Amino acid sequence: MPYELHYWPTIQGRGEFVRLALEAAGAPYVDVAREEGGMPAMDRYLSSPEVQRPPFAPPFLVDGKLVLAQTAAILLYLGPKLGLVGARAADALWTHQIQLTIADFVAEVHDVHHPIASGLYYEDQQAEAQRRAADFRRHRLTKFMAWFEAVLERNPRNAGASMPQLVGGRLSYADLSLFQVVDGLQYAFPKATRRVLKKAPRVAALHAGVATHRRLRAYLASGRRIAFNEQGIFRRYPELDA
Amino acid sequence: MPYELHYWPTIQGRGEFVRLALEAAGAPYVDVAREEGGMPAMDRYLSSPEVQRPPFAPPFLVDGKLVLAQTAAILLYLGPKLGLVGARAADALWTHQIQLTIADFVAEVHDVHHPIASGLYYEDQQAEAQRRAADFRRHRLTKFMAWFEAVLERNPRNAGASMPQLVGGRLSYADLSLFQVVDGLQYAFPKATRRVLKKAPRVAALHAGVATHRRLRAYLASGRRIAFNEQGIFRRYPELDA
Repeated sequence: MPYELHYWPTIQGRGEFVRLALEAAGAPYVDVAREEGGMPAMDRYLSSPEVQRPPFAPPFLVDGKLVLAQTAAILLYLGPKLGLVGARAADALWTHQIQLTIADFVAEVHDVHHPIASGLYYEDQQAEAQRRAADFRRHRLTKFMAWFEAVLERNPRNAGASMPQLVGGRLSYADLSLFQVVDGLQYAFPKATRRVLKKAPRVAALHAGVATHRRLRAYLASGRRIAFNEQGIFRRYPELDA
Repeated sequence: MPYELHYWPTIQGRGEFVRLALEAAGAPYVDVAREEGGMPAMDRYLSSPEVQRPPFAPPFLVDGKLVLAQTAAILLYLGPKLGLVGARAADALWTHQIQLTIADFVAEVHDVHHPIASGLYYEDQQAEAQRRAADFRRHRLTKFMAWFEAVLERNPRNAGASMPQLVGGRLSYADLSLFQVVDGLQYAFPKATRRVLKKAPRVAALHAGVATHRRLRAYLASGRRIAFNEQGIFRRYPELDA
């Protein structure tokens, strides 16, 4: 049985972190809501009182009887099955901790364009967004990227490696997620991201390296990769970049 | 060796979710930054380049060689050791999924009073906060509480139980965290919370029930429980409630 991924069909969003793991591993999966009749199937999990353990929101994974939401929890579950996390318990926890920090960062990136309410249009909170974006570029973007860089710098297995990785000596789902974050930042904040990556060369090298992964390269060039757009987390609003 | 919890010494904040688990289990721990010389110890983990796997931010737990940040990851790790999670893998994952949803909610609660920048004073973003608070009360508070209520309603083990619990038939760290969220909401948004709890009677019953837990009752009445205040996540700003 292929995994079922349920997520909004027209954006990368948080679903993309799961897609990248499934694609990198070559795991069989169905992107349910992008299939004919898939949106009602997704909606049923979200709204039917018969679902005993309901997701709060997409993305969620269905694997047999298991219905599992929360991006980081999905990756915690899939990691060992897909060979995308170290076998040692301490490595698995550290990978998860990094993923949760990425999740925090992603939520902040989203709120740059929606500081007042996710249910309102960007245009209805643009002034506030510009204020938040200035703080984001100056403080938060810098702080998070410096942390990722430090994690890469302090991983002893990166000494002499062609591509730095976050945890130990193997590719993990956290590496794929950090790739996605950098990819999204380059789309949404090209100027600020160019600047911050100069001070985070290992993060830039990880981003470049993941993009050359055989299966991911094929995925990124395929129609399965939805293009960045102004409905997702990473949105290109030039007035928010500098 | 007692667990070491590292967190800001003057607020409940995110550290409180870990404190509640340790206290409910009667586990030996040191609240490091509240001890003499504890702040430099915490700061060293955050800033020394010698820490190979550095926390991004407090809270973090030190257990022997393990340094573990991210509230939900700490509880994932402590849950089995403290007897605060079910033994079945599916129950452990579901508990973690609920905890991550609580974490998302807590971040939103924080951003109600800091919608523009966590580094700015509330007074410098009060107008934006009032706008965000109106949306929070109307939409987000309602949506999250309805989800917690549904989770409690659909847990078959709650039929006939004196106190509803989120996962299976035992007290979990997610129950303690939901208690904390309700406690904080009652402090920060007394009017809106009274209203929303009327539609979430199981959430209210869980909150009341956890407060009667023998060890937690003693903890909550002790000096170890820091009072809510206007430096933490849950702040009482009357202009944000209605």
